[in-house]
Amino acid sequence: MTATVSELGERALLARIHTQLGTTVRGSGRSSGLIVGIGDDAAVVARTRNTHTVLTTDALIEGVHFDRRFMSANDVGARAVAVNLSDLAAMGATPSWILLSLALPDAHPVAEVEQLANGVAQLAQRYGVVVIGGNLTRSPGAMMVDITAVGEVRPRRVLTRGGGRPGDALYVSGALGGAAAGLEMLRLAHEPASIVAAAAADRSAAPAGDACVTRYRRPDPRLRLGMSLAHTRAARAAMDLSDGLADAADQIATASGCGVEIDADCIPIEPSARAWWEAAGADPVARALSGGDDYELLFAVARSAGGRLRHVQSRVAAPPLTRVGVLTNDPSARVLLRNGNRERLPLGFDHFSRPE
Amino acid sequence: MTATVSELGERALLARIHTQLGTTVRGSGRSSGLIVGIGDDAAVVARTRNTHTVLTTDALIEGVHFDRRFMSANDVGARAVAVNLSDLAAMGATPSWILLSLALPDAHPVAEVEQLANGVAQLAQRYGVVVIGGNLTRSPGAMMVDITAVGEVRPRRVLTRGGGRPGDALYVSGALGGAAAGLEMLRLAHEPASIVAAAAADRSAAPAGDACVTRYRRPDPRLRLGMSLAHTRAARAAMDLSDGLADAADQIATASGCGVEIDADCIPIEPSARAWWEAAGADPVARALSGGDDYELLFAVARSAGGRLRHVQSRVAAPPLTRVGVLTNDPSARVLLRNGNRERLPLGFDHFSRPE
Repeated sequence: MTATVSELGERALLARIHTQLGTTVRGSGRSSGLIVGIGDDAAVVARTRNTHTVLTTDALIEGVHFDRRFMSANDVGARAVAVNLSDLAAMGATPSWILLSLALPDAHPVAEVEQLANGVAQLAQRYGVVVIGGNLTRSPGAMMVDITAVGEVRPRRVLTRGGGRPGDALYVSGALGGAAAGLEMLRLAHEPASIVAAAAADRSAAPAGDACVTRYRRPDPRLRLGMSLAHTRAARAAMDLSDGLADAADQIATASGCGVEIDADCIPIEPSARAWWEAAGADPVARALSGGDDYELLFAVARSAGGRLRHVQSRVAAPPLTRVGVLTNDPSARVLLRNGNRERLPLGFDHFSRPE
Repeated sequence: MTATVSELGERALLARIHTQLGTTVRGSGRSSGLIVGIGDDAAVVARTRNTHTVLTTDALIEGVHFDRRFMSANDVGARAVAVNLSDLAAMGATPSWILLSLALPDAHPVAEVEQLANGVAQLAQRYGVVVIGGNLTRSPGAMMVDITAVGEVRPRRVLTRGGGRPGDALYVSGALGGAAAGLEMLRLAHEPASIVAAAAADRSAAPAGDACVTRYRRPDPRLRLGMSLAHTRAARAAMDLSDGLADAADQIATASGCGVEIDADCIPIEPSARAWWEAAGADPVARALSGGDDYELLFAVARSAGGRLRHVQSRVAAPPLTRVGVLTNDPSARVLLRNGNRERLPLGFDHFSRPE
C-alpha cells in the first residue's frame, strides 16, 4: 500500500520533502548567507562582495528527459541538480543556491518524491549548494522537475561562449559518448524490440553496472574545472556539452564570430562506448560528436595561455583535458577526418525533433 | 494553416520568443546590471550595493492553473509573471530579473507561444523587469510555464511572514473575492452543465468584461505597496493572498508564533463578486475568505507604526488598505462573525485536492 501525493496532501508532502532537503540547509544567519529559506513567499540571500550573480534554469520532464523505467527517482533528482550546476560550471561560477519546482501527478507515490528530494539533497550537499525554496504543484500528466541554480563569479572572470578568437585551441574535459551509449544500453535492455542505434549489439555487452550507464544516470558537473578555468583566465570561452560536442563547438564558434575545426582523431571517446558502438557497426566518432548528456566542458584557450592551462591541469587532476580542435577565421564548422577529408559538423540536438 | 512548435523547431522558436521578449532587454553593460543575458549557459547580473537577493519560483500548468478556453496565451504569460512578482512584493523586494522555463507540446501553435512571450514581456516592461534567460523543452502533455523572479531588498527591510507579534493589526490591500468569482463566471460561461458554486446564478450576471473576470485573468502584483511597507518599516510581516485570506492569515500567525482573529464584517469584498455570490445564494464572506488568486497583500502593523502606515497610504494611493483583524496571544485562527460568534478559519487551498 503505497501512499500517493494526493492521499497525503500538499502540506504533509512539503514537510516530507523538507525533511529530505533539511540536511542541505546550513542554517540561517549572515555567516552562511542564507537570510530567509524555505517556507516564506520568497528566499532571501546575502551575497559575497565584489561578485556577479549567475542564474540558470533547466527542467527535466518525464517521457522527454527521463524514463522512470530506467532512472530511479533518486537519479532524477540528482540529475536535475547536476545539469543546472553544469551550466554554472560552464560560466566559471561557484554554485550557491537552488530553487526546486516540482509538478507531480496525483497518483505519484510519496516514496518516490522523497527519493527524488534525497537525490537533490545528495548533489546539493556534494557541491555545497543549499535548497532555499521552490514550488510544489499538481501535474495533469507527466512529472516535471524544474530547477533554478544560482552562483557567483568575480567580474571579468565570467566564461561566456563568445570570448573565443581565431587560433584559440579547443579543449574538452573527460571522455565523450558515455552518456549516449549508456542511454542506448538502457533502451535496448528495456525495449529489446525498439529501433535503437545499437540494436545489433549483443545485449550481454551492456551490463547494468557499465560505466556508460552510470555516466548517463549520474552526470557529474565539472564545477572545479570551470571555476579554475575562470579564476586563472586559462580559458576565454566555455560551454557545457549538454547537447553534444558538435553542437557546443558550433555554438562557441558562432558566439565568438569564428569558425571551428574539430580533429576527429583527437576526440576522447569513452572506451566502453567505443566498444559498444563498434560491436553495433556504428561509427564511434559520429556518435561521440552528436551524443549529448555528457556534461563535460568545451573551452577555448588562447595561444598565450598554455602556461595557465598547465597550471589548471596541475590543480584539477580529474577529468583529463584533451585538445580536440581550433577556432578558425573561416566561418564554417567542420570536422577533420582521419582520411584527411573535412566535413560539416552534424547538427545539434533539437528538443522538438524526435530522437532517431 | 497554423505552424506548430515541432514544425518550426527549437532554434527558430527560440528566435521568435526572443523577438517578443527583446523589448524588455535594456541592453547589456554595467549601467543596467545585465552582464550576460539570454543565449549563454547562464545569465550573469551585477547587483546593487548593500542589498540582499530575493528569489522565488512559481509554475502555471495547463489544466491545473489555467484553462486555455478562457485564458488567452497572452493572459497566461502575464499571469505567470504577476504571481511571481507578487511573491517579491510580499517580501518588500524590488524586482529585477526573470528566468522563463517553458514546456510545450509538439502540436502547440507557434502563434500562441509568441502571444505568451508577449504577455510575459508586457508585465516585465510594466514593472521594469528584464527576462535574462530560461529554458525551452518539449512536454509530452500539458503546457507548463515556470518562472523564477529575482529581486533586491535592503538588509533589515525584508518582510517575512514571521515578524508579527500579538496585538499587531492585520491589514489587507484592495478588495477580495474578485478573482474567485471571476473564475466561477468563466467556468459557468464555458461549462454551463458543470457544478460550480454559483451555478444557480443568472448567466447574464457575468458579462465577459466583468471586473471579476479581469481580476482573475490579469492579477496585478502589489509591488509599490510591498516596497513602501518594507522601506518605511510600516509592516513587520507580510504575505500575498495567492491561496486566499484565511490561508494567509493562518500562515502569518503560525510563522509569527501567534493566533489570529479576522473580523468578517471588515473584509473588503469586491462589489460585483458580492453581487454574484448573493445572486447564487452563496455566502460572500465565506467565499472571500477562502477564494484565492487575488494577489493582494496581507500584512501586520505594530501599534506603534500607525504613523508610518499613514505615510505609506499617502504615498501609495491605490489599492486602499483595510484593517481586517489582529494577531492574538491565543494561538487559534478564528473569524469573528457579525452575530458575535467566533469560528475556526477555513483551511487554505491544497494543490493536491480537487476544487470544490
